[in-house]
Amino acid sequence: MDFNILRVARVVMNVTDLNNSRDFYVNALGFIETESDDQHIYLRGLEEHCHHCLVLKKAVKPGVHSIGYKVWHEDDLEKIESLFKKKTLHTEWEEAGAQKALGRTLKATDPDGIPLEFFARMETVERCLQKYDLYKGARMQRIDHVNCMVPDVGKTVAFYNDELGFRCSEYTATADDSIWGAWLHRKPSVHDVAFMNGEGPRLHHIGFWLSDPLSLIHACDVLASMGHADCIERGPGRHGISNAFFLYIRDPDGNRIELYNGDYLTCDPDFEPVKWDINDPRRQTFWGHKAPDSWFSEATEFIDSASGQPVIQSKAVLAQQKPDFVT
Amino acid sequence: MDFNILRVARVVMNVTDLNNSRDFYVNALGFIETESDDQHIYLRGLEEHCHHCLVLKKAVKPGVHSIGYKVWHEDDLEKIESLFKKKTLHTEWEEAGAQKALGRTLKATDPDGIPLEFFARMETVERCLQKYDLYKGARMQRIDHVNCMVPDVGKTVAFYNDELGFRCSEYTATADDSIWGAWLHRKPSVHDVAFMNGEGPRLHHIGFWLSDPLSLIHACDVLASMGHADCIERGPGRHGISNAFFLYIRDPDGNRIELYNGDYLTCDPDFEPVKWDINDPRRQTFWGHKAPDSWFSEATEFIDSASGQPVIQSKAVLAQQKPDFVT
Amino acid sequence: MDFNILRVARVVMNVTDLNNSRDFYVNALGFIETESDDQHIYLRGLEEHCHHCLVLKKAVKPGVHSIGYKVWHEDDLEKIESLFKKKTLHTEWEEAGAQKALGRTLKATDPDGIPLEFFARMETVERCLQKYDLYKGARMQRIDHVNCMVPDVGKTVAFYNDELGFRCSEYTATADDSIWGAWLHRKPSVHDVAFMNGEGPRLHHIGFWLSDPLSLIHACDVLASMGHADCIERGPGRHGISNAFFLYIRDPDGNRIELYNGDYLTCDPDFEPVKWDINDPRRQTFWGHKAPDSWFSEATEFIDSASGQPVIQSKAVLAQQKPDFVT
Amino acid sequence: MDFNILRVARVVMNVTDLNNSRDFYVNALGFIETESDDQHIYLRGLEEHCHHCLVLKKAVKPGVHSIGYKVWHEDDLEKIESLFKKKTLHTEWEEAGAQKALGRTLKATDPDGIPLEFFARMETVERCLQKYDLYKGARMQRIDHVNCMVPDVGKTVAFYNDELGFRCSEYTATADDSIWGAWLHRKPSVHDVAFMNGEGPRLHHIGFWLSDPLSLIHACDVLASMGHADCIERGPGRHGISNAFFLYIRDPDGNRIELYNGDYLTCDPDFEPVKWDINDPRRQTFWGHKAPDSWFSEATEFIDSASGQPVIQSKAVLAQQKPDFVT
Repeated sequence: MDFNILRVARVVMNVTDLNNSRDFYVNALGFIETESDDQHIYLRGLEEHCHHCLVLKKAVKPGVHSIGYKVWHEDDLEKIESLFKKKTLHTEWEEAGAQKALGRTLKATDPDGIPLEFFARMETVERCLQKYDLYKGARMQRIDHVNCMVPDVGKTVAFYNDELGFRCSEYTATADDSIWGAWLHRKPSVHDVAFMNGEGPRLHHIGFWLSDPLSLIHACDVLASMGHADCIERGPGRHGISNAFFLYIRDPDGNRIELYNGDYLTCDPDFEPVKWDINDPRRQTFWGHKAPDSWFSEATEFIDSASGQPVIQSKAVLAQQKPDFVT
Repeated sequence: MDFNILRVARVVMNVTDLNNSRDFYVNALGFIETESDDQHIYLRGLEEHCHHCLVLKKAVKPGVHSIGYKVWHEDDLEKIESLFKKKTLHTEWEEAGAQKALGRTLKATDPDGIPLEFFARMETVERCLQKYDLYKGARMQRIDHVNCMVPDVGKTVAFYNDELGFRCSEYTATADDSIWGAWLHRKPSVHDVAFMNGEGPRLHHIGFWLSDPLSLIHACDVLASMGHADCIERGPGRHGISNAFFLYIRDPDGNRIELYNGDYLTCDPDFEPVKWDINDPRRQTFWGHKAPDSWFSEATEFIDSASGQPVIQSKAVLAQQKPDFVT
Repeated sequence: MDFNILRVARVVMNVTDLNNSRDFYVNALGFIETESDDQHIYLRGLEEHCHHCLVLKKAVKPGVHSIGYKVWHEDDLEKIESLFKKKTLHTEWEEAGAQKALGRTLKATDPDGIPLEFFARMETVERCLQKYDLYKGARMQRIDHVNCMVPDVGKTVAFYNDELGFRCSEYTATADDSIWGAWLHRKPSVHDVAFMNGEGPRLHHIGFWLSDPLSLIHACDVLASMGHADCIERGPGRHGISNAFFLYIRDPDGNRIELYNGDYLTCDPDFEPVKWDINDPRRQTFWGHKAPDSWFSEATEFIDSASGQPVIQSKAVLAQQKPDFVT
Repeated sequence: MDFNILRVARVVMNVTDLNNSRDFYVNALGFIETESDDQHIYLRGLEEHCHHCLVLKKAVKPGVHSIGYKVWHEDDLEKIESLFKKKTLHTEWEEAGAQKALGRTLKATDPDGIPLEFFARMETVERCLQKYDLYKGARMQRIDHVNCMVPDVGKTVAFYNDELGFRCSEYTATADDSIWGAWLHRKPSVHDVAFMNGEGPRLHHIGFWLSDPLSLIHACDVLASMGHADCIERGPGRHGISNAFFLYIRDPDGNRIELYNGDYLTCDPDFEPVKWDINDPRRQTFWGHKAPDSWFSEATEFIDSASGQPVIQSKAVLAQQKPDFVT
């Protein structure tokens, strides 16, 4: 391809109570609140110089408005538009400033119906990485990746890799070698986006990078101290896939957040994707811990920007919804 | 009382295969192997100057021979003997050297039938705390405590506190204020011994102190790398009781070992025991994680030294075997 | 002896600006401010249930009013009084409440002129160990020890060990086997008090226990972020003596504070004191780092409670003020 | 430019005793020894799937043979050759296999005389990231960057940025705004290569990524335990520049190695280079620690591959050799 997607850069999603969400994201997780109004909170991680990586939007029920990717150059946007048009996928332009802090933006719907945004510019703000006196809770450092459930992972991966230039670092296969899940990256980490087999499209989780494993342990302690122990869904643990030390939590609206630290550099083209068997107990959690059933079944729906209605979902093509040892 | 028990100092227990156990305790957990022969392995933690804190004894099936306490002075042994005799509890002397590295030893059976040993002397060896190039796996640093299941915790606690001079740091009570579990100490940590309600007497686990929380995370990684992921039974997590960061693992014979770090100083007599409700989800794991059922039901039997037969067990007096949220 | 000193429990010292000190101790170091008025700030560590372990007293210049030790029982106070009287050392009683939160107190002057306090009771308050949302900066957990410069360490150690029942865990000797420094404990850690050869008596530093090594690294980051980088005098490093991971900082008035984590259990009477050569480069810092000259020469004077004047100091009896490699 | 340099990928350097070096790099630092013969040791980090990132070559005295960069595609090599030829800089081809494990290689000399290598292929081997039972010492995870002293940093940076496509993340300027040092990257970390003002060209150090800060602390402990405390030259500390937690050590031949963890993602083109004043005490070490003079004056010379003689060095154009507070 002749364009350059840099990385996943932001997610816009609904929350039902801004103050509850602020308490969770800012006080417990340690995000920096760049700005807010009575309808939005704009959050960024400690190292981020971009205005935000997460927009919380007040709404009556949960839903994800878009996954945003940052591109290298303004001209990349037209090239991406051409691609989506050629595939007869919906596209739409927004001028700079139409959304807070955002430059000219191409909105586009991927083949699964996931609402995407591409942009080259976002307002920059002060990086707080060395303002250690502001560090709180989980010390969220930056957005790392998103993970989506889609009905046909093989097909989705073909689009992202062949058309958008993503590369696969690791993947999960079923007994008959069908792709059950795939971890795809543009920046040279294990992933910017992962796709897993399931009714979808749905956003499974957003992953944020932490500086070290003890910040993650401290996050558990802080969440419990604040009365949020119930939000811990899975972990802490070590992933087989990606090698990251992880924790999955659910925000006050049930949106799933991953705290993530410790994958590896993936820039070499001779790095062969790592294949895992879906029923390998060390795949999900290297230490053998089983994920709870909710982790496989629950996710947040996307919202169609034109209609404001939920994006229509399809059943998964693979019969196996989860590893055979998860009951 | 007129004697001074210093601390829990050793456990002697059966294993069925010394080489399997060596791989687990020395290579994965990082114990120092002080000495061994074809029937025993003597292990100590990195900071310990005593010859050992754990004796693994080759046998056809699991079983615990004794829990050993170190006392301040040789004369304390006679005073403890008097106490046990007055209570018509079994006592017996072993001369110095009758057991490897051990000084003159009083063997005594507590009211629950738990075989105890008291001694003032054990051979000293080199402390390896600053031989960091020997650190491996979990970097086990020292024995911290034992935990036993007994049928009537209230009665057992009365004996240990009133007769032996232990003090309670924290305890768990049922709805009607019966003591379900109690954490008792002589050294000023949260415990040297804990007792929990259950069919018994049985040894629930031995807890070892680690220098820091990341050693515990590394232990999980090393155990999984060596193919021992199955041995991880519960955790990592933070205890509500004791505040310690913990991991429970099972050795190749099913004996339960706790990796433990981060409790607090308990030497002040005005420190009131902390009371927890057995059904408080933050009691066992501050983060709300549920312990598995096996953690409540499985433990290792004690062996009567005279008969070589298992110590007879009794049913628990309290009906509640575990928190109501554990199924 | 027939009394039982439990542990070092508090220090009362002057600061010249309460707000500057609050910023340093509360915001940067993470102490809990139990209470304050326009002349005092009362601080405690996160795990402490005692009202305070450090009293900052507004004054025109630095100075230490007393080092306080907690004893097991009220009756111990009379026994300690007898000892000091027998030695013709100054003693004086204060009724409960004469000082904020303090029970009946025996004030006594040790042979070096150090003003001591002994008490069995201090008001208890809520322990914040599991209020992780309150954790800040260095996350100071509890008072661990004090370190004083005295002119004749050998003589001082004899008094503390033979008369007060302290035990030596480690010591430093010069080429001719004179004791240059000694680490003495009542609670079973490496020390409650250390004495080092130097013009004195002076308070060299107060050491506080941290839960883990990364809290100490974070403390450096926070101090630097707040503009207090200049306060870092020595470390982070690993002590040869005690094995602790340490950092020495100077408060806004120059009082020296040690952040300390990772020593070992010392309750066994058969543990022989560890001897170090003063010129062994691994003694002070196991990694070979040299302490700065200020660390050997600067300390805070004590204040005589009767006169309100500085306690008279004497020259050190040993010629060697510092290791030969420190210039 | 029309070629794509991926990252710094290897360094080839002399050592005088392979066994001493093995003890240092493999046993103390935890590199994986991929292969060796009586003239070479080939080392890689725990996550690396490439055959090696460091070649130690037996020789009578220290010297660096080359800095190797990996490129995206074989065709990139010809394009890089053209560039160097156009600048009348020396180039030379080596066929695949001429050096152990290396594909077809373009050797080229940069304007400062630094011997470079470019290659698209290196034999791949097993990644040991999840073989935690092999982790030792510093747990070196991957090569991160090199740092070179050159006489005119501004000129060197112009070549690397304008001709080779590197981008500057941070830089140091003197009072008159001359560039004293610059941190340049291809992979989206703070740097693949840094250049500092000094007599040169010389290799100042090679930096390796660690998974977490405690591995670095453990490295200090292990080095000291093995009798290598003298090798610790600077740190541990936090860099102002890059924000990394760092340690500088010297190998048995004086080659400088940096242990490095904790910088940030630099893939966004709108990230403006961070400017630091050379005399800002927080620039080098955020905590204000001063680097020793040796750190500014000592470095390893490069060896000209044709002549086998040291590459000729020039005096630095800027008068200021080091911050004004370093004496």
